Amino acid sequence: MKIALDAMGGDFAPKVAVEGALLALTELSKDTSVILVGKENEIRDWLIGQEYPEERLIIQNAEEVVGMHEHPAKSFSQKPDSSISVGFKLLKTKEANAFCSAGNTGAMMVHSLFVLKTHGSIQRPPIAGFFPLRNGKFNIMLDIGANADCKPELLQQFAELGSIYASLTLDIQKPRVALLNIGEEETKGSQVVQATYQLLKNDPRVNFVGNIEGRDLFEDKADVVVTEGFTGNVIFKMGESLYEYANDQGIDDRLINRMNYEVVGGSPIIGVKGNVIVGHGISSALAIKNMILLAEKQVDSGVNAKIAEVFGE
Amino acid sequence: MKIALDAMGGDFAPKVAVEGALLALTELSKDTSVILVGKENEIRDWLIGQEYPEERLIIQNAEEVVGMHEHPAKSFSQKPDSSISVGFKLLKTKEANAFCSAGNTGAMMVHSLFVLKTHGSIQRPPIAGFFPLRNGKFNIMLDIGANADCKPELLQQFAELGSIYASLTLDIQKPRVALLNIGEEETKGSQVVQATYQLLKNDPRVNFVGNIEGRDLFEDKADVVVTEGFTGNVIFKMGESLYEYANDQGIDDRLINRMNYEVVGGSPIIGVKGNVIVGHGISSALAIKNMILLAEKQVDSGVNAKIAEVFGE
Repeated sequence: MKIALDAMGGDFAPKVAVEGALLALTELSKDTSVILVGKENEIRDWLIGQEYPEERLIIQNAEEVVGMHEHPAKSFSQKPDSSISVGFKLLKTKEANAFCSAGNTGAMMVHSLFVLKTHGSIQRPPIAGFFPLRNGKFNIMLDIGANADCKPELLQQFAELGSIYASLTLDIQKPRVALLNIGEEETKGSQVVQATYQLLKNDPRVNFVGNIEGRDLFEDKADVVVTEGFTGNVIFKMGESLYEYANDQGIDDRLINRMNYEVVGGSPIIGVKGNVIVGHGISSALAIKNMILLAEKQVDSGVNAKIAEVFGE
Repeated sequence: MKIALDAMGGDFAPKVAVEGALLALTELSKDTSVILVGKENEIRDWLIGQEYPEERLIIQNAEEVVGMHEHPAKSFSQKPDSSISVGFKLLKTKEANAFCSAGNTGAMMVHSLFVLKTHGSIQRPPIAGFFPLRNGKFNIMLDIGANADCKPELLQQFAELGSIYASLTLDIQKPRVALLNIGEEETKGSQVVQATYQLLKNDPRVNFVGNIEGRDLFEDKADVVVTEGFTGNVIFKMGESLYEYANDQGIDDRLINRMNYEVVGGSPIIGVKGNVIVGHGISSALAIKNMILLAEKQVDSGVNAKIAEVFGE
């Protein structure tokens, strides 16, 4: 397996990207290689003096860099040799099995849509987050930021995609799918959420367990939580900042520690024809390492083949 | 001043309502009385053996009770002698300056709309929550659950109402008003939020400071945070459950402790012609006490007169 990493993505690139890749190489399967995509000279500078299995670390030169605040669509058309564009080319040509980046999420999304495209009938791909539960597990929440406005049919697709993702990567037979809402009854919540409830209730592809409220998010009541990207994003960022606060205060708690984005390290863009994982702009080497490990797990899970089977190529 | 309390509202009524009222009487101004509204016999049972200033505790009999899960509009038409209905009559006739209840929030909202009505041009009243900040302060978040779907004009009214509320109850000259969003730029977020940004930017009634993201909610970046009731509700309930979790783990932290709903005890319904405060169904005596103290503070602030001045009677 080959996992491509955007060596230029994130606030501390290429340093932490290179460090994260080297850390990952100590934990990845011996059959897995990492392809560092970016300015070869800079990458080589950071590799000087480092010990690593050279045959498993490939450098793919890319001369351009997409800035963190650059316009996603413009970067796509104007920087064909950016590390992100080159990474997607590797994915498209199957030279890489996955592509990870802590860089510009919007650019990652645009490349996913334009270069890879979505599987069959999928309208828009969501970004999925791993949400920590009290009992030590994680569940899958989606969308956490790619789609601020969602129609019920789109949320239904998120439920179906999340269900496939959870079943294969978390190894759950019939993942329980819940709809994030502000009440338990099916007549509660926004119009979009009420209509989504009816779609999910009658969807044989998902094991729908009803609504879940904010107060139950940390309980093990669902394996998949479906929400519009607006609320999902606010929740995730609030959780991350809570971890940072608790860490500052010296609080060391199992649940709160897992709100630290570094623990999982990345969030998959699901539903596109390839394994794409995006990371936090502030990613540390630890986060990068974990993002690469997540990519390996996702490739191994065969989630994309299953999505193609259900939604079409 | 007279503050009416729904003695039959909440999961542990009338016991904790009576206990909370007695606790409040030890802290309220000596000129403030509490009116317990509910089944007089039951209330008197709980008063047996208690020490309290009898001249400041009034009992107003009400023979019916609205259940926690009863249909709000039906309870309004079918139970004219419920403790909630009687409480609103006291407000309407100015026999009480405020009415508090830990009972059925939907019924409180329906009575607010039908009995009191909104001030002038206010379309829908929001419920405001006190959100805890890292530095020990609270800000005002609204809406936290009354309106799952909001148009931009409604969110603008929430901003204006929140601004008046914060200026008078938190004593802030020009409250900073922020819009909850999933990015800092004005072109980020849902269509409703993007349109709201434009309204707030040009609204002379509010000191608009731009978007605030989930990661900054605990920072002192705004005095008022505007959001649709859907996301606001999820955030609040998630915070409450996080406090419960932390408390279970023995974590004692100033910020997390203030996510405990008991600390403030209630949330005002803002924009209706009267001071109405709703509390959590699981309210303890401590929560009820703090809800009553909040009511006194709100009455003292004159926030309703100011809202009438701005929006019309």
